[in-house]
Amino acid sequence: MEPNPNLDRLKLLINEAIDLYHMIGLLSWDQQTYMPPGGAPERGHQMATLSRIGHLKFTSDEIGRLLEDLKPYAAEIAPDSDDARLIKVTAHRYEKLIKVPADLVAEFANVTSDAHLVWKQAREKSEFAKFQPYLEKIFELRRRYAALFVPYDHIYDPLLDDYEPGLKTAEVQAIFSTLRPQQVELIRAITERPQVDDSFLHQPYDEQKQWDFGVEVITRFGYDWKRGRQDRATHPFTIDFGTGDVRITTRFLPNYFASAFFSTTHECGHALYAQGINPNLDRTTLGDGASLGIHESQSRLYENLIGRSRDFWVHFYPRLQEYYQAQLGNIPLETFYKAINKVEPSLIRVEADEATYNLHIMLRLELEIALIEGSLEVKDLPDAWNNGMRAYLGVTPPNDSQGVLQDIHWSHGYIGYFSTYALGNLIAAQLWECVNRDIPDLHDQIRRGVFADLTGWMQEKIHRHGKKFEPQELVQRVTGNKIDPGPYIRYLTTKYGEIYGL
Amino acid sequence: MEPNPNLDRLKLLINEAIDLYHMIGLLSWDQQTYMPPGGAPERGHQMATLSRIGHLKFTSDEIGRLLEDLKPYAAEIAPDSDDARLIKVTAHRYEKLIKVPADLVAEFANVTSDAHLVWKQAREKSEFAKFQPYLEKIFELRRRYAALFVPYDHIYDPLLDDYEPGLKTAEVQAIFSTLRPQQVELIRAITERPQVDDSFLHQPYDEQKQWDFGVEVITRFGYDWKRGRQDRATHPFTIDFGTGDVRITTRFLPNYFASAFFSTTHECGHALYAQGINPNLDRTTLGDGASLGIHESQSRLYENLIGRSRDFWVHFYPRLQEYYQAQLGNIPLETFYKAINKVEPSLIRVEADEATYNLHIMLRLELEIALIEGSLEVKDLPDAWNNGMRAYLGVTPPNDSQGVLQDIHWSHGYIGYFSTYALGNLIAAQLWECVNRDIPDLHDQIRRGVFADLTGWMQEKIHRHGKKFEPQELVQRVTGNKIDPGPYIRYLTTKYGEIYGL
Repeated sequence: MEPNPNLDRLKLLINEAIDLYHMIGLLSWDQQTYMPPGGAPERGHQMATLSRIGHLKFTSDEIGRLLEDLKPYAAEIAPDSDDARLIKVTAHRYEKLIKVPADLVAEFANVTSDAHLVWKQAREKSEFAKFQPYLEKIFELRRRYAALFVPYDHIYDPLLDDYEPGLKTAEVQAIFSTLRPQQVELIRAITERPQVDDSFLHQPYDEQKQWDFGVEVITRFGYDWKRGRQDRATHPFTIDFGTGDVRITTRFLPNYFASAFFSTTHECGHALYAQGINPNLDRTTLGDGASLGIHESQSRLYENLIGRSRDFWVHFYPRLQEYYQAQLGNIPLETFYKAINKVEPSLIRVEADEATYNLHIMLRLELEIALIEGSLEVKDLPDAWNNGMRAYLGVTPPNDSQGVLQDIHWSHGYIGYFSTYALGNLIAAQLWECVNRDIPDLHDQIRRGVFADLTGWMQEKIHRHGKKFEPQELVQRVTGNKIDPGPYIRYLTTKYGEIYGL
Repeated sequence: MEPNPNLDRLKLLINEAIDLYHMIGLLSWDQQTYMPPGGAPERGHQMATLSRIGHLKFTSDEIGRLLEDLKPYAAEIAPDSDDARLIKVTAHRYEKLIKVPADLVAEFANVTSDAHLVWKQAREKSEFAKFQPYLEKIFELRRRYAALFVPYDHIYDPLLDDYEPGLKTAEVQAIFSTLRPQQVELIRAITERPQVDDSFLHQPYDEQKQWDFGVEVITRFGYDWKRGRQDRATHPFTIDFGTGDVRITTRFLPNYFASAFFSTTHECGHALYAQGINPNLDRTTLGDGASLGIHESQSRLYENLIGRSRDFWVHFYPRLQEYYQAQLGNIPLETFYKAINKVEPSLIRVEADEATYNLHIMLRLELEIALIEGSLEVKDLPDAWNNGMRAYLGVTPPNDSQGVLQDIHWSHGYIGYFSTYALGNLIAAQLWECVNRDIPDLHDQIRRGVFADLTGWMQEKIHRHGKKFEPQELVQRVTGNKIDPGPYIRYLTTKYGEIYGL
């Protein structure tokens, strides 16, 4: 192939824009880890300035012209090549961005900035009415945003597309309507069985040992410390500035073992993905995960399908007992395994166990869709929330703080985000069935604490492609099917059937 | 005064440019503290991208037009007002920047980037010949740079002006030619006296206690932890992103007490300056120290005039003895005081004591001036260096690593920087005489570990003005004189005369 000067120029401009986005990432990392409180006001200005410049860079006329000029070239080259995909993904992002008028961008930024502050106060006092007008405005602005992308099958499609490129509302609804009754039924069956005891997880666990054990495990998973680091943060997250610098954060509860450990393995899943992307895609629009759902499949796989499996603990439980002789020395592996897999319908999503988690998500998705369609009004949201919780989980929030006000997402205007959490669980289970077919002795490897083949498989099948493929396309390529709730239902039913003797 | 829309627009553009510069600062802070090694290549790209965008922002035609349009307005308003000074300082910086052709900027960046790598290798192997062609190129490029600013009194003036706005080569030469013979004579007299014993400073000193004691002291100095933090770095530095976020770094030698402690107090001096600037100047070209020399006056004042004074240790030595009972429990205050003030001519600038330090600087300044004038050739530099060391300090470097190759500055192309270190010492002594006149019981306050009046005085006289005044103007305003070596000579002679019984 001849070198193409338009493509080279496009790449140069993209490189610069991605540098800026990565720098916003560093500002955010610093803000959540080390920034002193006095830095907050100026940090806000810095973020706004960089976002503005990054947006201008990415939506420049020159990028538009280059993308237009490159259309015939892109049609000639191999459709799965890095260059063809770079042009495609960049064009999609560019076309979405330029359709949004600057005043709508500004209004949305202002409203969500205010809304976030009001939400905090509203949650503290459990006063939904305070937050209601802001949330109404947010949904109105998101409807105006979505309307810019007519024609669409569903007004929620453009919103979902921001997080799951190419995925349609109808697809997600179909997936969830298969999943929901089966998962509701499973939970109901579990709650009728005798409960497991996890009280020994709730006692003092030395923080430094929690840190050390977590580090030991994720090092085995394959996290590369030369291209990463771990720090403390109030709300754990993973962030990357290219494949060479992928950072995780965690937090510790001094009186509970499971919180930091599963958070660390979760973030490690995200980090392995970011470290595993082909470095040739660095500083481009492809140097990222395929979608939030695919990303979440990796974090949930290492957190749950590995981290909460019996096989994993066959190897690591004796080691954990060495760390915590007093706490766990007399607790058998089987008891520990059941404790970390205790299922209990509860009010708060982020504290939900593996089996109930998706139901929290499905409720949010239904409400979001109803709100954006207009079939539900914001003022009726708390009742709808509470009814949903009763129907799916059999629990009723005593107030809005522990109900409809619990999540940060809507206050930031992230409409379309929630379903990615549940999709991640489903995709993880699909990949899990495949990798177990491809590596027949995987269970045995895990029982020996060996993860090289597993992580290598994920890198080969998922990580290295970065954002080249849309999530449905990627799942189809790897598993032979689109996103499908079947494997997840089989996984839950088998695992929890055994634990709870169903 | 009517609001001026041109001025408002100028401020907005400056705000954005300063945001970008502060972000380059954060990239640098992160690189020197927490960045994993794998992040280095992309970090280089990020820095280059931000520098390029920042430069374009600051040198935009619009800023040029606004500055031109604002000239009559600036002439009308009070000349010492923030607005008048903002216009003046911004115009000075703008005019310097736009005079430099883009290809010279690029060539200088490339040459210094290579030169820095070669310097590292050359220093390791003590092979000046390796570094010589790069240093020749650097001086050639700096001559071309300086030549852009004709007419000047001396070709070194535009270089010096980058670090000490407004200061002339002839002024620095006059100051140093007064200072040099007196300081050489003092050192000679000291070396003829019996040496003090500081061996007890060289033994294991627990690192955490070093950290805690340092924190205790700088908290008393007035360092505001809500607007700052301390981290470890190989080469300690202070950096700020506005007055709300001023960070210091330090490093610890496990077998030597004085290194980290005096480094911490030094950086604290810089940090008090940055925290003390009027917050109204944040995000502007005035939100910085007046010059490197003025900045260094603050760091050297807290490090030496306070930190190495008997008064200071009258209060803090008993506390330090509590931390290090085994090491210092039997060492009297007087012995400790002499040990931390031991004078010994040595080869390495950064390890030099307070009394010999300036001689290292004066040698470098003379050589720089001779090289830029062309009266000295780079190939003859090692000999000139060694001769200078013998003449001023009575020591001869055994090789170039411990001689002409020791400093990083020239490899980065920082020509004109060194003198600021010595000027800082002189200005510190000038301020010290003034503050002692204004606060008659200052010695007594320090003996009680009280620094509020001292730091308050510095904030009032120096810090709050930021970059509003050029260094000579500021020193004149505060002390009634321009930069003057007299107070420093008096300080050295009195202090070391007493210690060494001269």
